[in-house]
Amino acid sequence: METTGLEIVRTVAALRDQVGEWRRDGQTVALVPTMGALHEGHLSLMRQGHEICDRVCATIFVNPKQFAPSEDFETYPRGEGEDVAKLIAEGVDLLFAPDVSVMYPDNFATTVSVTGVSDGLCGAARPGFFDGVATVVSKLLLQALPDVAIFGEKDYQQLLVIRQAAQDLNIPVDVVGGPTVREADGLALSSRNAYLNEAERQQAAAIIDALGTAAANIATRRGTAKGEIAAAVQKLNDAGFTNIDYLELCDAETLVPVDDVTRPARLLVAAWLGETRLIDNIAVVATTQTK
Amino acid sequence: METTGLEIVRTVAALRDQVGEWRRDGQTVALVPTMGALHEGHLSLMRQGHEICDRVCATIFVNPKQFAPSEDFETYPRGEGEDVAKLIAEGVDLLFAPDVSVMYPDNFATTVSVTGVSDGLCGAARPGFFDGVATVVSKLLLQALPDVAIFGEKDYQQLLVIRQAAQDLNIPVDVVGGPTVREADGLALSSRNAYLNEAERQQAAAIIDALGTAAANIATRRGTAKGEIAAAVQKLNDAGFTNIDYLELCDAETLVPVDDVTRPARLLVAAWLGETRLIDNIAVVATTQTK
Repeated sequence: METTGLEIVRTVAALRDQVGEWRRDGQTVALVPTMGALHEGHLSLMRQGHEICDRVCATIFVNPKQFAPSEDFETYPRGEGEDVAKLIAEGVDLLFAPDVSVMYPDNFATTVSVTGVSDGLCGAARPGFFDGVATVVSKLLLQALPDVAIFGEKDYQQLLVIRQAAQDLNIPVDVVGGPTVREADGLALSSRNAYLNEAERQQAAAIIDALGTAAANIATRRGTAKGEIAAAVQKLNDAGFTNIDYLELCDAETLVPVDDVTRPARLLVAAWLGETRLIDNIAVVATTQTK
Repeated sequence: METTGLEIVRTVAALRDQVGEWRRDGQTVALVPTMGALHEGHLSLMRQGHEICDRVCATIFVNPKQFAPSEDFETYPRGEGEDVAKLIAEGVDLLFAPDVSVMYPDNFATTVSVTGVSDGLCGAARPGFFDGVATVVSKLLLQALPDVAIFGEKDYQQLLVIRQAAQDLNIPVDVVGGPTVREADGLALSSRNAYLNEAERQQAAAIIDALGTAAANIATRRGTAKGEIAAAVQKLNDAGFTNIDYLELCDAETLVPVDDVTRPARLLVAAWLGETRLIDNIAVVATTQTK
């Protein structure tokens, strides 16, 4: 481990010892929780961690509590060897990669639930999902006790749910978002992009095209939210998307659906290409009106 | 404040500053959460805190989330002046007494729920009660970040729920129970005893009489759990109790109902005298059988 600089730990005690040692030495620590299958989006969060803290600790845990029985827990991409190589290349200091039995011993019985920001969008489409997220992330934050925890804005609603839970439970950690990283054609990086076949991969770029056009037209008030959303949905259908869970304009802080952009808003989408569910989102901030 | 030694704080920042300063100095800190209306039971927990830690921090917060609309939140006894005098007399170092708006700001949206130990007994009789307890105590533990938190065994199920939540969420605190303190006639001290009129106060002692007899007979196998529980219920009815929410023998760790004492068990009761609900419990450990 000494030669790479990446220490790998699998117990809470070992994780806490290392993070605690750094913090007692006056070093700040950023935690970057992931489910593995690391791509450039995750790695950008590791770099962001290095920018704002002295040490970066990644976690890899495919959390069974955030998958419904019908979802892809079993087939979710896993490959610790490749992930470790990427973390080493990024100079990440510590990896916490626990077994399920470490996170959820047999008598585990506690759930962290958030209402409000978790109610609509993916919360409506995936019942129980955000309970699973809020529970596992609360645990990871309290296991590691870092200064900062970083989550990608690609999962924008998740970021808000985690921030709400941490704030409400007084978890002593700053929750920070990191910008979405995109492919050359604009597709947001996601571990689930690996599920797409070649044709679907081409079709997938329609998401950012549809979102970007709608966001620009809403921001400049060239179109109404209702009209622009309808046009974006049409674009996705035309591009071959097989189902759209939602495509909504929401307040950027509360995620309450809005039909104007008097406050910062976010346009969010979840849509299916065959068996693959993709999500994305984009900021919508009204431009100053000129007369 | 200097002359008394008791510092009173009302914000999370001030609480964390003081506890953090002690802990950075190498002093250990015990937290004793209460809803005020302090009696000898609470004060015994303060003394227990002094025995196991260098510093003791009490909290007083009448938690609205653990009262149902039909319950006694409005009338629950409050008197910070008297409570402060008692804490000073016990040499308590710090009191955290936040307003509701500090604990639950307007956009508060998170709940900690525990299944299993919280399902029966008071969990069945008071829906939502243990969610309120688990949520507020998780917050208090994470606000103060003490070494140890102490809760009375009079609220035995509550102690187990809190221990489960702290363990499951990896809250870095030892949860410790303190023995029930009783009046001369055996009535468990409770802030709600103040609701009893003189006649009810006399009748209330039947609880420990009924529990004690049943526990002794079950432990020595002079009687079956079923028969002893029926006899104890009869005693409470005869003594004038107007309703019995439960009187059950349960596994002392899981609170699963049991009908024998092959493992440590607990006999628990909740019963009403007019408008007042009283709870109590007692250990039932099988005595070694002699032939």
